[in-house]
Amino acid sequence: MAGSMKALRFHSAKDLRVESVPVPELLPGQVKVKPEWCGICGSDLHEYLTGPILTPAVGKPHRLTGCTVPLIMGHEFAGEVVELGPGVQPGRLKVGMKVCIEPTLFDDTCPPCLDRRRNCCEKGGFFGLSGWGGGFSEYACLQEKVVHPLPDNVSTEIGALVEPLAVAWHAVKASDHSPDQSALVVGAGPIGLAVLFCLLAKGCRQILISEVSPQRIKHALDIAASHPDVEIKVLDPTKEDVVAKAKELCSQGNQGPNTAYDCAGVQKSIETAIGAVRKGGLVCNVSVWEKPATIDVNALVFSEKKLMGVACYCEGDFQEVIEAISTGKIRNPEKLITARVALEDAVTNGFEALMKSREHVKILVHP
Amino acid sequence: MAGSMKALRFHSAKDLRVESVPVPELLPGQVKVKPEWCGICGSDLHEYLTGPILTPAVGKPHRLTGCTVPLIMGHEFAGEVVELGPGVQPGRLKVGMKVCIEPTLFDDTCPPCLDRRRNCCEKGGFFGLSGWGGGFSEYACLQEKVVHPLPDNVSTEIGALVEPLAVAWHAVKASDHSPDQSALVVGAGPIGLAVLFCLLAKGCRQILISEVSPQRIKHALDIAASHPDVEIKVLDPTKEDVVAKAKELCSQGNQGPNTAYDCAGVQKSIETAIGAVRKGGLVCNVSVWEKPATIDVNALVFSEKKLMGVACYCEGDFQEVIEAISTGKIRNPEKLITARVALEDAVTNGFEALMKSREHVKILVHP
Repeated sequence: MAGSMKALRFHSAKDLRVESVPVPELLPGQVKVKPEWCGICGSDLHEYLTGPILTPAVGKPHRLTGCTVPLIMGHEFAGEVVELGPGVQPGRLKVGMKVCIEPTLFDDTCPPCLDRRRNCCEKGGFFGLSGWGGGFSEYACLQEKVVHPLPDNVSTEIGALVEPLAVAWHAVKASDHSPDQSALVVGAGPIGLAVLFCLLAKGCRQILISEVSPQRIKHALDIAASHPDVEIKVLDPTKEDVVAKAKELCSQGNQGPNTAYDCAGVQKSIETAIGAVRKGGLVCNVSVWEKPATIDVNALVFSEKKLMGVACYCEGDFQEVIEAISTGKIRNPEKLITARVALEDAVTNGFEALMKSREHVKILVHP
Repeated sequence: MAGSMKALRFHSAKDLRVESVPVPELLPGQVKVKPEWCGICGSDLHEYLTGPILTPAVGKPHRLTGCTVPLIMGHEFAGEVVELGPGVQPGRLKVGMKVCIEPTLFDDTCPPCLDRRRNCCEKGGFFGLSGWGGGFSEYACLQEKVVHPLPDNVSTEIGALVEPLAVAWHAVKASDHSPDQSALVVGAGPIGLAVLFCLLAKGCRQILISEVSPQRIKHALDIAASHPDVEIKVLDPTKEDVVAKAKELCSQGNQGPNTAYDCAGVQKSIETAIGAVRKGGLVCNVSVWEKPATIDVNALVFSEKKLMGVACYCEGDFQEVIEAISTGKIRNPEKLITARVALEDAVTNGFEALMKSREHVKILVHP
């Protein structure tokens, strides 16, 4: 299977090209996968707009991969196993099997990795952002352990959603939120909606969502409609005081939600999250920030509130999300998909379309 | 015991007066205490310099007490029970008993109080800052439940230190720091040193302290000297890179301390604390801030760090501190006391002395 393949490579801001590149060599311990669907992530969009940010610029090779731009993008993908590399025992993985990919790159030897925090690896990166390949391509070679089999009832389309859902799953798990508690999700973009799915999967009974975009409000309400037994309220901060409303809606003496997930990563969203959670509550940050925040630390001190950051996902998260989808705990995740495009159209109908309108949540690319 | 008594009353910034005021009326359920020693707190000093801050200004009566300035200051105090009010059963408290005072005022009926968070009471305040009396006076009348008996081997001088030690005790408890973990204390003022005492009482084996003032460094080293079995290192940020040094000193792969206590409450201290703690670590804020902080939230996100605020103390903390002192777990807390002054000299030799020099840690006033 030597030869060349098509791939979408990032060169610099606004310069993404579908190019012919060599098919990657299958190394020992690796599995060759043919990506079928690969989602466009917010961080892909950031790279496209103002990168290189996470991608390693020329002259600044990535600390783990040693690669620099241009490189193949795409890290939310699922596809089919086409070849097992030397040393990979057939069993868990077989040729022809549908799989989804956990795209974090880690070195397995640094203290955080040894501490079971490979999401905080000192050399960490992402397949599809840091080099070694990506999902927007015909073939990708990956370490066996990051290749997760999909059950029969989970398609590769849905498999491409496992990555963003795993981010949300990890956040909900890290926040220690329990089903009988109330939650506020600030921002109903792809991650905010994924957090909504995960809270629902956990059996939460009261979820508030704050969002300004009418299209995103519509998506949130659509997901809410398939869970008529759960109290889901979508609040629009341009029309009402979300902090006051959250305190009013959340039971137990108008104390406000127990947990707030900041899925927007802007000054206003963190202020809303900190203001809304009850005394002793937790603000969980599930977003990448473009600039520092101004925080009234006294608001944390006098009310004993916590602010935590969560980074992608860790051991177990992918498997748990796949199981939650397969067993129906995460119900109708395909609602996140708003368009499907071919690799050739990924820039115009994918990246540019996401920039132009908030109508889209997740656009999947078929490489 | 009607008549008048001497008390130190706060009128406005730089206007603290020793005055003759009526002896407070002993209400049902209250205990009358004769304060013997009362410490000057950092918040007292803030009021003196730029108040009213926490004290209720004229026209803005306190939400619980209904009082406004002028009012009696002093909330870190211990003394002797002189009278039990109607309805107080002699037993736990007796006339002549040495006691220390838990000065938080709370309404016991708001949701946080019902949720066992009286330190976050919606109407909360402090005896000695919000009205109803204070420790810088000859007599004080308090609800029975905030009056804690001192064991025979704990003097009222030490009893006056229980309040600041309880702040630190509560912080260490809330931070869930375990003895086998490493800690960084940023700022070796009264609260930073109190945190040091509480970490030592918990049996912690590795404690770093960051402090700029030579006098405070001396105090920290003095406390360290009485614990030769514990690795205590005092770092001076004007001479070394505390973040780098903390990572180097803390075992397990230079990951940095597990917990950092920000006891300074300034931009530089929170940056040091967030920068130094290991991935997945906790920054515990034990300080009142004069202005908002600028926080790189990504530093929390990519390293899964937490920032929490803690507010004074809650049920159990006073009793636990008193027991820790009595049993010697908190060893030589009198090292915190750097001067003792009479009520008449409290302004000149107390408040003004604390402003002039960082040589002092805790100055006790004898009312």
